[in-house]
Amino acid sequence: MVVNKFLIKAMNIETGGILIALLTESDAQKLDLNIGDRVLIKKGRKEITAILDIAKSSRTLAKGKVGLFQEALKHLNAKSTDQVSIHFAGKPKSLQYIKEKLHGKQLSGKELHQIIDDITNDRLTDIEKTAFVMGGYMNGFSVKETVAMTKAMVETGEQLKFNGIVLDKHCIGGVPNNRTTMIVGPIIAAAGLIMPKTSSRAITSPAGTADTMECLARVELPKNKIEKVIKKCGVALVHGGSVNLAPADDKIIEIERPLAIDAEGQLLASVMAKKHSVGAKIVLIDIPMGPSTKAKNRSDANKLKKKFVMLGKALGIKVKVIVTDGSQPIGNGVGPLLEAKDVITILKNEDHAPTDLKEKSLKMAGILLELSKKVKKGKGYHRAKYLLESGLAWQKMQEIIKMQGPQKMPSLGKYSFNVKAHRKGKVKAIDNLTIAKLARTCGAPFDKGTGLFIYKKKKDKVEEGEILFTLYAESKDKLNLAKKILIDQEAYLIK
Amino acid sequence: MVVNKFLIKAMNIETGGILIALLTESDAQKLDLNIGDRVLIKKGRKEITAILDIAKSSRTLAKGKVGLFQEALKHLNAKSTDQVSIHFAGKPKSLQYIKEKLHGKQLSGKELHQIIDDITNDRLTDIEKTAFVMGGYMNGFSVKETVAMTKAMVETGEQLKFNGIVLDKHCIGGVPNNRTTMIVGPIIAAAGLIMPKTSSRAITSPAGTADTMECLARVELPKNKIEKVIKKCGVALVHGGSVNLAPADDKIIEIERPLAIDAEGQLLASVMAKKHSVGAKIVLIDIPMGPSTKAKNRSDANKLKKKFVMLGKALGIKVKVIVTDGSQPIGNGVGPLLEAKDVITILKNEDHAPTDLKEKSLKMAGILLELSKKVKKGKGYHRAKYLLESGLAWQKMQEIIKMQGPQKMPSLGKYSFNVKAHRKGKVKAIDNLTIAKLARTCGAPFDKGTGLFIYKKKKDKVEEGEILFTLYAESKDKLNLAKKILIDQEAYLIK
Repeated sequence: MVVNKFLIKAMNIETGGILIALLTESDAQKLDLNIGDRVLIKKGRKEITAILDIAKSSRTLAKGKVGLFQEALKHLNAKSTDQVSIHFAGKPKSLQYIKEKLHGKQLSGKELHQIIDDITNDRLTDIEKTAFVMGGYMNGFSVKETVAMTKAMVETGEQLKFNGIVLDKHCIGGVPNNRTTMIVGPIIAAAGLIMPKTSSRAITSPAGTADTMECLARVELPKNKIEKVIKKCGVALVHGGSVNLAPADDKIIEIERPLAIDAEGQLLASVMAKKHSVGAKIVLIDIPMGPSTKAKNRSDANKLKKKFVMLGKALGIKVKVIVTDGSQPIGNGVGPLLEAKDVITILKNEDHAPTDLKEKSLKMAGILLELSKKVKKGKGYHRAKYLLESGLAWQKMQEIIKMQGPQKMPSLGKYSFNVKAHRKGKVKAIDNLTIAKLARTCGAPFDKGTGLFIYKKKKDKVEEGEILFTLYAESKDKLNLAKKILIDQEAYLIK
Repeated sequence: MVVNKFLIKAMNIETGGILIALLTESDAQKLDLNIGDRVLIKKGRKEITAILDIAKSSRTLAKGKVGLFQEALKHLNAKSTDQVSIHFAGKPKSLQYIKEKLHGKQLSGKELHQIIDDITNDRLTDIEKTAFVMGGYMNGFSVKETVAMTKAMVETGEQLKFNGIVLDKHCIGGVPNNRTTMIVGPIIAAAGLIMPKTSSRAITSPAGTADTMECLARVELPKNKIEKVIKKCGVALVHGGSVNLAPADDKIIEIERPLAIDAEGQLLASVMAKKHSVGAKIVLIDIPMGPSTKAKNRSDANKLKKKFVMLGKALGIKVKVIVTDGSQPIGNGVGPLLEAKDVITILKNEDHAPTDLKEKSLKMAGILLELSKKVKKGKGYHRAKYLLESGLAWQKMQEIIKMQGPQKMPSLGKYSFNVKAHRKGKVKAIDNLTIAKLARTCGAPFDKGTGLFIYKKKKDKVEEGEILFTLYAESKDKLNLAKKILIDQEAYLIK
């Protein structure tokens, strides 16, 4: 009988996700474990599944010890002196279901729950998670599967509950900036309504609401703190991932991010799971339509709209969908800090505030006010405009920032480059994808102060040599990589 | 200007594949690098791309040092005192092509070459490689794409060259045991022909030829040693991965293995790349047909046959395809050691040698002898039988083992369990998938002595309580996991 007791050694190495455990070769052999095996590590009643790496020197790890990387240590809630036992973990059940999805099978609620549960508890490797995401991306999910996946995401996470009518909003993305949440939220709050908005970080874009808000305030708050902010202010502007609202969603996003893909069924489940987790009963969905967005045309947009409404119905949520112009960036900044600055100029009613972002936000806030029945039909926009221009929304925003914990604004990228018009003419089109790619290559969303600032929009007249936009980066390498993109790709069409 | 000089610290940690580099938080910040970033590490003119983990304590890593995990150190051909520079590496070009493949685009030869080159040089993460494998698995590869991928695999690896007519064979798998190569090879060698067979390790099966041969001799040989063995013996029985023949193939298999999938285009390219790399001009392909194999029926088999012949033509290789019975295991053992034992009993002409495996091998060797024109049409089988039963093939095998480097035979799994017939009757069917799953759960192919031994085949009469097969494992845990499978799944149909 092999004695199965190991002392933990904290390896002090962060992987950014995957849970890694380390054994010496001889200990692994004794336990009949191989490199790359999935192992179950038990500390009392707590357990995690980790991937096994092998220590090749006793200086790295002594016999009788198990090295845990940072994430594994954290998930096990353990410290260096703790004792654990280690076991071979068979392949997780969900692997079979993932394979069936790859083969085009429609998965049952139970099967999807198992997959989502295994993702939530880090029982799947990157390869296996990617296979699931690809199965969904390429074979699609039915409405029934999407409902099941949404429920599973909600059930495997924490949930928030509020009294009264709970509103929420969401944009499916594809348009740089378009930071409406940070304007609509304060307006709704100023109207005395509840909108427990939780946001994701960027997937394919240069910034998500969470990344942007993080330039102004902390967005990774514990559950009880978020509840406090919402109860006090009506609105919180936080990252959903940090409070375990539908945590599987964020783990799936980690897979999608490096591939810069967004699977439709996954998208629907992702959006609605967050809304369901916070108890929203009225949800406004913004579907921007344009050549670079998920909805290329009216027919795409309507199909997606229908699915959102159906999914809402299945979950007991009233969903209103608007299809908006997604043919160019909305706002001027692209990148967390630059977008945060746009938001502030609007909330503070400054002269140079971008009008497109302001008008869109007012329209959306108006719809929500009407849906809540707080304002009469047809009067929403005007009420929203009053709440913004009176300064009440800005006051709310300051209150929210104060409660979430103000952050020192990051500084703008040290290195910049002006991109100029090659010819005189009129801006006919702006390529959102190139704009996003440029901003991401500059370092967004990770380097907060990077991205670009847009001076010219569609229909604007330009002279030859006039600045169209300015790139900002934190390193010369990244700025140069962005400049290289401009050799092959045109961000602007001028005619 | 940031000084970019780092001393290597060997972390002595093996991951089993992925290249990991470690920096302190402050050094990463100075270089403007984030956790999970792809970094270029340069030592003189040598460079690798690695994934960045972060050290959270100075005991783990001091400032000014870069920690390299075992595989990164090996690829960079570096040691602890070496100095390197570290740079942000943009996303590899092939990522864009992978995304296009996901969207169903047919990739050009140049694009596939880029992907295969990035895979060969470890520039892609598990997530990205999985996305590529999934794109091919779900959207398929055209013949043109497969030809390009095959060529790219050959070009990004080493190649072997021999004088004279070079033969080769391959079975596309799906049938437990079926270890014909280790019998056909020695027969062909005894006939004085050249068959520079290189084999893969198991993907979805409990053992590959490389895993099995490794019970008898070393299979990881350097290129010059393999050439020596072939020049001396006519045949080598080695693992292709160790000599960099089409190394991308093995890296793709590492992705397929945990998912237990085999993509068709990938399969075709994988097989033909190995053959092309060793300069084979005549290749015999065995397509087993059965409910659990890739060819479920005659039409599947013929489609695949046609593709192999077309791909052969494009590569200048004469391809002969046979469709064989794949409805049950061929041979008695399942698992590396147990299969190696079957092979030896046949080569030594022992009484209890499995006749199905022997006959199939003779038939295949006969075809190859005829294709080589060494033996007249219609006389191949008889010549092969003579070479086997005279002991000449066994003599060749001993010669090959001696040159490759004999290995001490592993011992049989310590723990065993007899699976008995529930009722009297006749064996109507054996489920290959359940047999393979049982053997893999017992520990095959990693624990060499594990798997199962089959006593009863299709059409055999059995009494109630008679032993059908015996499971062998190295740990009680794994044996118990295998026994659990038997509760839900029937390996035998007895009527």
